[in-house]
Amino acid sequence: MDLKSHIRSVPDFPKKGILFYDITTLVKDAKAFKETIDQLYGLVKGKKYDKVAAIESRGFIFAAPLALMLGCGFVIIRKPGKLPAEVISQSYSLEYGKNTLEVHKDAIKPGERVLLVDDLLATGGTMEAAASLVEKLGGKVETLLFVINLAFLPGAKRLEKYDKRYLITYNE
Amino acid sequence: MDLKSHIRSVPDFPKKGILFYDITTLVKDAKAFKETIDQLYGLVKGKKYDKVAAIESRGFIFAAPLALMLGCGFVIIRKPGKLPAEVISQSYSLEYGKNTLEVHKDAIKPGERVLLVDDLLATGGTMEAAASLVEKLGGKVETLLFVINLAFLPGAKRLEKYDKRYLITYNE
Repeated sequence: MDLKSHIRSVPDFPKKGILFYDITTLVKDAKAFKETIDQLYGLVKGKKYDKVAAIESRGFIFAAPLALMLGCGFVIIRKPGKLPAEVISQSYSLEYGKNTLEVHKDAIKPGERVLLVDDLLATGGTMEAAASLVEKLGGKVETLLFVINLAFLPGAKRLEKYDKRYLITYNE
Repeated sequence: MDLKSHIRSVPDFPKKGILFYDITTLVKDAKAFKETIDQLYGLVKGKKYDKVAAIESRGFIFAAPLALMLGCGFVIIRKPGKLPAEVISQSYSLEYGKNTLEVHKDAIKPGERVLLVDDLLATGGTMEAAASLVEKLGGKVETLLFVINLAFLPGAKRLEKYDKRYLITYNE
């Protein structure tokens, strides 16, 4: 199945000059969604993980099924103020301004092996912050898994110390 | 398995006087997460759905696996400005102020049978708005499925015209 044909390109979103790859058209198709999850599973099966962690909110769509298939607990990494119990935070720079991610302190135990999942790798700042949170809790970032890799952006370079896997790559 | 024992109660979140039921402790436990999804599936299996729709962002965690198990496409309902293509919107009142939800216009076709999923039923305003969006697109809201029902709040009454199913109920 050509999964790329199910991804919609939206020009000038979220701002002028950006071509946005929209996964809602991928997941609304039952067969394409199942094929996507099966192929993502194929990229990581055989490795041992204790937790699957995902970045709010599109990451949840792909990571939650994978956590179940891998027999792992599921950890959510969120924007500030959303998690109710004690958290740790990590800020990161964007093109304009900065963002922060949070995770519960008790989400990951020291030594746990973590699969980190997000929908898209662009500049890598968000995933770098998420990986830092896992490491601050003593977790081991085993793999970074993305549905889409924008290979013309420096995300892979920024995350070069990690094992990275991608389902779909765009070169422009 | 006692799923309730995996849900953490957090006093005074998001504001003073509110007791928040935290599902992160449920999903981070691999066995409890799997049991939760299996039991949710048990509440809806046998009914025919074309789409599973979920409300950002905790709803995605439970709805995405269910969509796969039911062989359905997956639809995401989000806060304003997050969806890149053409949307329809629905505003609803909160205790203080109002919120808006959006869904892509092409997410649901007229006549499609929809299972709507969220993590928690409180006053029902969010789910009522989500159901309105599905109906505006011509979809048929077959079932509303919640992980948690706060039965001491008027959510079920507000949504009385719908088929509602809950995994876990709190009476106080």
